Amino acid sequence: MTLDRIYQAAHLLKPAVRRTEIIPYPWIQSDCELYLKAENLQLTGSFKLRGAYFKISMLSDEDKKKGVIACSAGNHAQGVALAARDMGIKATIFVPSVSPLSKIEATRRLGAEVKIVDGVYDDAHRAALEYQKECGMVFIHPFNDEDVIAGQGTIALEILEDMPDVESIIVPVGGGGLISGIAYAVKKLRPSCKVYGVQAAGAGSMYASLENGTLTKIPKVSTFADGIAVRAPGDITFDLCSQFVDQVVTVTDDEIATAILTLMEQEKLVSEGAGAVSVAAILFDKLRLTGQKVCAIVSGGNVDVNILSRIIDRGLRTTGRLSEMNVEMIDKPGQLQEVSAIIASLGANVVKVLHNPSGENTDINGCYLHLSMETKNKEHFQSIKDTMQAKGYRILS
Amino acid sequence: MTLDRIYQAAHLLKPAVRRTEIIPYPWIQSDCELYLKAENLQLTGSFKLRGAYFKISMLSDEDKKKGVIACSAGNHAQGVALAARDMGIKATIFVPSVSPLSKIEATRRLGAEVKIVDGVYDDAHRAALEYQKECGMVFIHPFNDEDVIAGQGTIALEILEDMPDVESIIVPVGGGGLISGIAYAVKKLRPSCKVYGVQAAGAGSMYASLENGTLTKIPKVSTFADGIAVRAPGDITFDLCSQFVDQVVTVTDDEIATAILTLMEQEKLVSEGAGAVSVAAILFDKLRLTGQKVCAIVSGGNVDVNILSRIIDRGLRTTGRLSEMNVEMIDKPGQLQEVSAIIASLGANVVKVLHNPSGENTDINGCYLHLSMETKNKEHFQSIKDTMQAKGYRILS
Repeated sequence: MTLDRIYQAAHLLKPAVRRTEIIPYPWIQSDCELYLKAENLQLTGSFKLRGAYFKISMLSDEDKKKGVIACSAGNHAQGVALAARDMGIKATIFVPSVSPLSKIEATRRLGAEVKIVDGVYDDAHRAALEYQKECGMVFIHPFNDEDVIAGQGTIALEILEDMPDVESIIVPVGGGGLISGIAYAVKKLRPSCKVYGVQAAGAGSMYASLENGTLTKIPKVSTFADGIAVRAPGDITFDLCSQFVDQVVTVTDDEIATAILTLMEQEKLVSEGAGAVSVAAILFDKLRLTGQKVCAIVSGGNVDVNILSRIIDRGLRTTGRLSEMNVEMIDKPGQLQEVSAIIASLGANVVKVLHNPSGENTDINGCYLHLSMETKNKEHFQSIKDTMQAKGYRILS
Repeated sequence: MTLDRIYQAAHLLKPAVRRTEIIPYPWIQSDCELYLKAENLQLTGSFKLRGAYFKISMLSDEDKKKGVIACSAGNHAQGVALAARDMGIKATIFVPSVSPLSKIEATRRLGAEVKIVDGVYDDAHRAALEYQKECGMVFIHPFNDEDVIAGQGTIALEILEDMPDVESIIVPVGGGGLISGIAYAVKKLRPSCKVYGVQAAGAGSMYASLENGTLTKIPKVSTFADGIAVRAPGDITFDLCSQFVDQVVTVTDDEIATAILTLMEQEKLVSEGAGAVSVAAILFDKLRLTGQKVCAIVSGGNVDVNILSRIIDRGLRTTGRLSEMNVEMIDKPGQLQEVSAIIASLGANVVKVLHNPSGENTDINGCYLHLSMETKNKEHFQSIKDTMQAKGYRILS
């Protein structure tokens, strides 16, 4: 890797890629001065376009004529598809059949030929490599490629130019392509600036690799942040991260859901799980950033809307803003009204009621009430439970 | 109104208000070159801060000392609260009790005193005016005020500067404060640029007023776009719109929901109903903009996340991406499998199944299957229904 390569990428990307906004985050619960590099506002909805575009533009004329292959259901697919279309090159993208329809359609709309392979990512990947052997087209790796890494590194040039006094940059990490490019550029240009990586706890392959000091493949991945659900870093990205990244930390899926919700509510930005891990790390104090000027990269926003409402729900529960209780009550008139009155007087808002004549844990002549309510936070909910109990109600859960 | 006033507002707002991004919209289904002025990324999540800030900054020292009153559960409340806090002025905001908890909390977090009034907006408004009479504080009107209008007009200065060749500006309209300021500035500075307003069909008071040529109060409002659910424009805003606005059109709630969904999916921006009407008008061809360079104002993003999932759902249904059918079937083994196979082979994705032993409209020995599925569009869904019927299944709805 060289700085030259990253500067060359920046030059080539200029006409094809957006210089995304850096948006201040005024409402953060944290004690650092936070700015977001909004790569979710990048064309195709993620930073992946940068690496794919630079990689493809560096191919020989002969290779360009043959076309390119990639395997992905998500951001890399759209990045390769748009980059290829811009350069008039044929792109064939292998997609596992489990992928959301919306992402497949988005890739198709960008002009790529989409081949759906029965199964999960590994099946599609195998099919792509077989096809590549037959046809001799270049396979565009999503992260373990120096040109791809240099393309992603252009983000660092933009941050250092727009925020000359930035002290820490927080980067989502899957296979490590994004953070490798950023960390390399930052440490060459401004070594005092820290570069931190964040992974999903259920897919912490780079975290494990750096802890172990050797490239580690984890047995399975388990996170809804599909964009960073990677079982092993590449040898190139592992090597660059070992040298240039200050620290990698992990966040749980509940923390990621909270970050997505917070970004929607406070910043009006849609982010995907992979894109929000950086903000999750800050919200949940995984890094020591007190008093610093920080830039968190929101790397993508391609979240399937069909699961977004589930994420919102999870975020609301994690932060105590959606709470549920089961109350036992003797089946006599007026109790529902009394319970409602208690809850209303404490400032919560009932959104769902289920009134069951009998439940497993209740007396035969009793019944239970299942209540979902909007609450301010966990303490608020606890105060409601306490008040109910003081009035003689038995809370089952 | 004078341009002077708007330029003065721009000068005063500089340290307190964000110059929001203008974001290109590359994926639009329309045939104009569209850009979004993202006032949902404004501090407090909407443009309302601008008018409130300028209005309060123009108060006499004596009035400032007394503090200000406003009535709103939404964007105006947060705008007044933040503006007052920035200037060290006490703000008392009257809020109807039906308001979402999240918005009340947001206003409180900005340091305002929140008074919750039992009932709807009109009740809170009445209480606010009574309080104002008692205490003599200045009441900050959400739109019918020349300083407030001048504050909102600063958006036009930014658009004209950032898009010197803009040909049409599309503006959400409730009471008309935003469009009054914008239309005035645009028509004074660049009369050839068109200014169009968009209202919710269920709250088309400015639309009706301009049609009737006289200020018209509509009997009731019915739209989920609460930020523009206004029964009548003000006399000042009606007068300015009569003079300077080229046309006002309306969009339905389903069209608004589709616009919100489109902005989330394609642009990764969270908008509220009021903020998305401008984009809805473009998506559903309410204006002749072919070939033009257009700026649509996304005026706010303060949507309660608890209803956002319902909006997503509505948008998916409106565009045929979430479809439902009830299929009658003879209760014999293998039928569920056959139906699933047909749907899968046509590229749809079943997301919910309800298998009922009997339904109102079925034979006693039959049963029906309620299916929810992800589809590409309405034609796609129709082709699935056609195939099912060709195979002998009776579709009940």
